[in-house]
Amino acid sequence: MLKKPNDESRTEQVVLETISGRKEGPALFAEILAPPMNLLGPELVRDLVSLIQQAEANDTVQVLVFKSADPDYFIAHVDVTRISEYREAAAQLAGEPSLAMLFRRLSTSRLVTIAQIEGRVRGAGSEFVLACDMRFAARESAIFSQLEAAFGLIQGAGAIRHLTRLMGRGRALEVLLSAEDYNAELAERYGWINRALPAAVLGNFVKSLAHRIASFPAAGRALIKERVNGIGLAPAEDFRSDSDLFLECARTPESQGRTRTAMNRGFQTRNAEMDLDCMLGELVEQ
Amino acid sequence: MLKKPNDESRTEQVVLETISGRKEGPALFAEILAPPMNLLGPELVRDLVSLIQQAEANDTVQVLVFKSADPDYFIAHVDVTRISEYREAAAQLAGEPSLAMLFRRLSTSRLVTIAQIEGRVRGAGSEFVLACDMRFAARESAIFSQLEAAFGLIQGAGAIRHLTRLMGRGRALEVLLSAEDYNAELAERYGWINRALPAAVLGNFVKSLAHRIASFPAAGRALIKERVNGIGLAPAEDFRSDSDLFLECARTPESQGRTRTAMNRGFQTRNAEMDLDCMLGELVEQ
Amino acid sequence: MLKKPNDESRTEQVVLETISGRKEGPALFAEILAPPMNLLGPELVRDLVSLIQQAEANDTVQVLVFKSADPDYFIAHVDVTRISEYREAAAQLAGEPSLAMLFRRLSTSRLVTIAQIEGRVRGAGSEFVLACDMRFAARESAIFSQLEAAFGLIQGAGAIRHLTRLMGRGRALEVLLSAEDYNAELAERYGWINRALPAAVLGNFVKSLAHRIASFPAAGRALIKERVNGIGLAPAEDFRSDSDLFLECARTPESQGRTRTAMNRGFQTRNAEMDLDCMLGELVEQ
Repeated sequence: MLKKPNDESRTEQVVLETISGRKEGPALFAEILAPPMNLLGPELVRDLVSLIQQAEANDTVQVLVFKSADPDYFIAHVDVTRISEYREAAAQLAGEPSLAMLFRRLSTSRLVTIAQIEGRVRGAGSEFVLACDMRFAARESAIFSQLEAAFGLIQGAGAIRHLTRLMGRGRALEVLLSAEDYNAELAERYGWINRALPAAVLGNFVKSLAHRIASFPAAGRALIKERVNGIGLAPAEDFRSDSDLFLECARTPESQGRTRTAMNRGFQTRNAEMDLDCMLGELVEQ
Repeated sequence: MLKKPNDESRTEQVVLETISGRKEGPALFAEILAPPMNLLGPELVRDLVSLIQQAEANDTVQVLVFKSADPDYFIAHVDVTRISEYREAAAQLAGEPSLAMLFRRLSTSRLVTIAQIEGRVRGAGSEFVLACDMRFAARESAIFSQLEAAFGLIQGAGAIRHLTRLMGRGRALEVLLSAEDYNAELAERYGWINRALPAAVLGNFVKSLAHRIASFPAAGRALIKERVNGIGLAPAEDFRSDSDLFLECARTPESQGRTRTAMNRGFQTRNAEMDLDCMLGELVEQ
Repeated sequence: MLKKPNDESRTEQVVLETISGRKEGPALFAEILAPPMNLLGPELVRDLVSLIQQAEANDTVQVLVFKSADPDYFIAHVDVTRISEYREAAAQLAGEPSLAMLFRRLSTSRLVTIAQIEGRVRGAGSEFVLACDMRFAARESAIFSQLEAAFGLIQGAGAIRHLTRLMGRGRALEVLLSAEDYNAELAERYGWINRALPAAVLGNFVKSLAHRIASFPAAGRALIKERVNGIGLAPAEDFRSDSDLFLECARTPESQGRTRTAMNRGFQTRNAEMDLDCMLGELVEQ
């Protein structure tokens, strides 16, 4: 809940189970902490919905920054054991049970959104930051991956739409088909993120950018974002169709077998996913 | 006026108030000098129109190179005190009072155009170089900015159309919403320009490229450019609509207040704009 | 012909006049050798068609890697003296006499294709690697060029379609109009290729990537590729139209004159094309 400011300070707090927000003037800094590894399950989706709704309803909020309180994980990926639950949670804002539609909704928000990325951001976590308006990552720690292909899945929440536009057909096919980990430097070179910055300067850089943008008139900003979206954001039906197809793929025996194998090897546990790259390369169903 | 060549030389001259051109065989090298800071006002727009018309009318000109005689400013930005005047000047070639349509007209010219950029190029100056076919910049001195958002304006002369296609949604939103200065190295990384080169080699590089391209058959060149434009150049109605919207924004009290504040702090003076970045970050109307 | 595996080994061989292939599990590694310089003539096109047909017909092949056995030439460019012959050879798979349509057909193959590039790849050679799903090049030796403009030709086999999308209008116009040689580092910066890697690691990198991708379920992979193609691969009519126009250009006296001049100076000979850049810059018809 967004608390009213007192007289001495313009700082306000948002306190949710998996996200806490601190408002500094027109910029709201949201920190994700969903132990043990920031999995995107129904709780985190519910809190994202709540945060976005509160921030949009507050006329004094102009810019929304997302970061993680877990140095190793920004957002791990979806909780594959609770797909229908997190989809239902997404429906509260998206109007339909689909992460893709929730993320696209975020891309069209009147708020300017910035992802400040440290640690791992894979699968739908990457799709979440792709839905943000800008992405800056810590050179030393940020790791990116679209891991769906390893499970016989397609990227259902926008990665295909965004990455093909951001990095072109060749690099997008590499990223989407390889399920490899990419470090921040390579993610920058490929256009996955705006810039990789040293961790020591990242926070101040984003804070300063957020305040600068928030200081400019809202009307012009909205017109610019609307027009850029008109060119660079895929139509809703493309997101919806990817979302449906993801669900279909997830129901196939091949995909379910691979998921079981992965779970048996530690998938969705904090330690095993520190170095997920190797596990995914050896995921042949047994 | 394009003087006739004498027998000893193939060099011809174009002498206009704010642009002087030197023809070397099939390449015309135009140098902008509109003291005190190469503002894009009615005189410079009129001379750009005249230069383009003369160059296009001369069958022996194949490539047109733009550079600046002012080491600190390529084109500062539009003269915000003379918007209707420079728009009328643009109409002489564009057929309608719009910089966007003039610049788009340049992008479809039979001439191959190259911008050789040293110094600052902001706002519509950046949109002018984006309308050129290629952009090469001095690593040490070139500075790029789309400053419109700081004034509650949208980019009205093509930046939204070009930058979203060149650098993707995330980087385009950053550039268009932040009104920050970008150096040549970062502009290259973002795809704003073709390449950043050391100032010491830039001139010879562009000259050699211009002559090489001009030596190839015109017919094939025109077909290639037409096809690339069919993919990478936005439709005229998009440029026109941005142009109209820029004008609407410029008439709002909020934008006019910000412009007054900026003028009071030295906006549109040579010295104050050497480091414009800071001023724009503190432009809250008082 | 794809030989049946024996019991001891999963390795199979493809032996064609200009291409030899070695199958390692689900990945087929094809090596081009068409002396003296890997010109794209009717023999090589015929063998490409045959290789693709055999690989697609073999359900155990998932990924197809192309490399060259000639360290200096990956694919030089088309044999300009045998245009109608290689077009007829392309028709065997494309259904119409057009390299563009053959290459586009390859881009839509169920196989994932990777180009491992050492040496020169110019003209339609570049268009072939652009049709592959991914491109990795040796930092020390790979050289890229679209040389058509020097002959008054347009790029007829997809370069206009791919490069404008991969690198944007400005860089695409530079590459397509300049007919310059680009090294691997610059090709990477421009987005022409996925990555430039040291020659010493390139082979193992590609091999490992090929096996990783091939180990993932085919169904999801096909859906991803289909969707990326829906965004990043131009419609067939655009390829066809470029192909027709290339042929028209090639019949003009100006283009034929330039080709004659080039042939007189060693064009289509191994030594002269080691440094083709200079020759093309001085190709004024005499």
